[in-house]
Amino acid sequence: MFDKDRFAALSTHNAPGQEVRQATGNVGNLMRGNILPGQLVDFSHGDVDAFLPTPGAVECFSAAVDAGGRQAYTEYRGSADIRSELAERLAAFTGAPVSAEDGTIVTPGTQGALFLAVASLVNPGDKVAIVQPDYFANRKLVQFFGGEAIPVAMSYLEASPEAGIDLSQLRAAFEAGARIFLFSNPNNPTGAVYSRREIEKIIALALTFEVTVIADQLYSRLLYEGETYTHIRACGLPEDRSITIMGPSKTESLSGYRLGIAFGAPSIVERMEKLQAIVSLRAPGYNQAVLRTWFNEPVGWLDERIQQHQAIRDDLLSIFRSGGLATRTPQAGSYLFPTLPPLAVGLHDFVRLLRHQASAIVTPGTEFGPHSHSIRLNFSQDRAAAIAAGRRIVELVHRYRA
Amino acid sequence: MFDKDRFAALSTHNAPGQEVRQATGNVGNLMRGNILPGQLVDFSHGDVDAFLPTPGAVECFSAAVDAGGRQAYTEYRGSADIRSELAERLAAFTGAPVSAEDGTIVTPGTQGALFLAVASLVNPGDKVAIVQPDYFANRKLVQFFGGEAIPVAMSYLEASPEAGIDLSQLRAAFEAGARIFLFSNPNNPTGAVYSRREIEKIIALALTFEVTVIADQLYSRLLYEGETYTHIRACGLPEDRSITIMGPSKTESLSGYRLGIAFGAPSIVERMEKLQAIVSLRAPGYNQAVLRTWFNEPVGWLDERIQQHQAIRDDLLSIFRSGGLATRTPQAGSYLFPTLPPLAVGLHDFVRLLRHQASAIVTPGTEFGPHSHSIRLNFSQDRAAAIAAGRRIVELVHRYRA
Repeated sequence: MFDKDRFAALSTHNAPGQEVRQATGNVGNLMRGNILPGQLVDFSHGDVDAFLPTPGAVECFSAAVDAGGRQAYTEYRGSADIRSELAERLAAFTGAPVSAEDGTIVTPGTQGALFLAVASLVNPGDKVAIVQPDYFANRKLVQFFGGEAIPVAMSYLEASPEAGIDLSQLRAAFEAGARIFLFSNPNNPTGAVYSRREIEKIIALALTFEVTVIADQLYSRLLYEGETYTHIRACGLPEDRSITIMGPSKTESLSGYRLGIAFGAPSIVERMEKLQAIVSLRAPGYNQAVLRTWFNEPVGWLDERIQQHQAIRDDLLSIFRSGGLATRTPQAGSYLFPTLPPLAVGLHDFVRLLRHQASAIVTPGTEFGPHSHSIRLNFSQDRAAAIAAGRRIVELVHRYRA
Repeated sequence: MFDKDRFAALSTHNAPGQEVRQATGNVGNLMRGNILPGQLVDFSHGDVDAFLPTPGAVECFSAAVDAGGRQAYTEYRGSADIRSELAERLAAFTGAPVSAEDGTIVTPGTQGALFLAVASLVNPGDKVAIVQPDYFANRKLVQFFGGEAIPVAMSYLEASPEAGIDLSQLRAAFEAGARIFLFSNPNNPTGAVYSRREIEKIIALALTFEVTVIADQLYSRLLYEGETYTHIRACGLPEDRSITIMGPSKTESLSGYRLGIAFGAPSIVERMEKLQAIVSLRAPGYNQAVLRTWFNEPVGWLDERIQQHQAIRDDLLSIFRSGGLATRTPQAGSYLFPTLPPLAVGLHDFVRLLRHQASAIVTPGTEFGPHSHSIRLNFSQDRAAAIAAGRRIVELVHRYRA
């Protein structure tokens, strides 16, 4: 009855946040040198104690509890008045209209939105173009629904100010029959942002091949100085052929409320809501009220948050590069994806050694595609702790060089 | 690309809570008599303003927000210390051991647990025994994963003190190849509780045919005076062949926090966690802390809640029965499933008329199986308002008799 293969593909053994379920095993046998002293830094996700949630979040939540039943039970797609506020702000942010009534759905986390979007569009046998590297769940979701992921390479190390997507491979994926393109922008794990030229080329190909686009824009607000961001939904795709996913989580440190939103094609939103009915019924009733703080922060709040992240980004880039780890400069978001030199131990053993010997938790690059020489770090951390942990990582890389 | 049939089966058009998206249409053309005055009662779900959440819930939530990152990011299966508390209490409640480490998972609502359990066990082509009537999502979930629901009748009107399941049909379903039995106990929508004899027969059949049991026990705490409840997981099923679903929602009026828990077979929980990683990542971080209040209420709190519900149950039973609507006495939970006499209008029109003309929102019986002469009411409501609305329903039944 159990389909073992289906679940093998879903392995969470090395997934971010699950490290506590991992035995460190006999990693001691591999150890070179002593344990480096220092404060544990969990780079697998942002530190919401270092970057506090948006002002007013708790107050919005409490007001919702006080409001009682009206807020506990909302439409499956989320509270109508909250969706109405959001539609206006998301239209302004992305530069294209959003229908509050038919074009928005609130979900449990952006993961929930991604799951519902893929489930609404991918049937067994469908081909889906997936960038390498990209968010680890994308490939797993396509496989879970019996689809086939067609890889599209991204030369992220060299390409800025472009993301570096191989557009000829994207065309080849569409020629091979892919009718869905699922991608994160900024790219997770590299922080690469697609240029206007790249977005326009993607749209031209999507129009030629009648492709539907799922755009995961979770980190698009955390855009660094001097960078520009192009919203694919505002660049000429037909309304019924794109769905955009965002959420107040990382940038705003609101992950603990688990809220996501998908907006765009009403036909896709309708399917997503039908699925949500059997998947989780609705996003948490009271938590939804926290969305009232989103795109509604005090003046200067977001700029300050961006500057703080940019400082940590630059510190770590300098540490990694001077240590010989080639690393792209992220244009947005809070991920770094450094390349390791050839090591005398395997990647997963090295990740365990980092945890055991350097008090640094990172995610292996293999979660994002065939990237066995990379590690991902979420640098939304206490700055001093992140710098010290970055130095310990470099020290361990040197110890374990092949 | 879109598989229209797959989504047609998932229709939420008449699903509880979605009434606001329904046009009342030209129901006015069908109207007999005037609109009955009275306060709107939404029987599609419980009224958390009439029955307040468990004491301490808000305080637990606030403490979790203050705890910060530790509570915002938990293992995908939920916070280890909360699962540890729960495992002990659920073992005591159900009468069989629960493993905190390997046998529990916290989900976004009990709907989330049900989805993950079915997704973990049902592959395309699998047959699943489903009771008629039973919770509307059961059948939809099986169909969504390409399984086949084999119906098993329940003669719920006559059978108390038994639930009335047709055990020969259950055997026939297993003989036809069903290897999963998914059922709610107390039964949703009827409130029927399976007798010890029925549970033992189900187990004997499950052992003979090597069937895995998914038991949705969401309402098992709200057990009325003089009734007894038998937990199927404590009656001799092998550990790896059952999973039980509960949650602090209806009885405790904590629906707005959207929390569920599944406990039992470690092999099933492991699959559920892998799936949760791509479905919603984890239950909301802060909300999980509200589980600390569960099975931990002040002395007498649950007894009082049961007595209050029993009073409303008995009021409505008396109103419906004297109005000619045959209705089973629910032994547990807060649902009533009265049978309507033959009407001059279709069930869905009558449900719309009830909303329009009697200010009463109910769920059509067809959501629970082929029950086109029944309506479901959640009577966890303000008592006086529920009584008045019950009388209006009876009045409309008389007006529209065939």
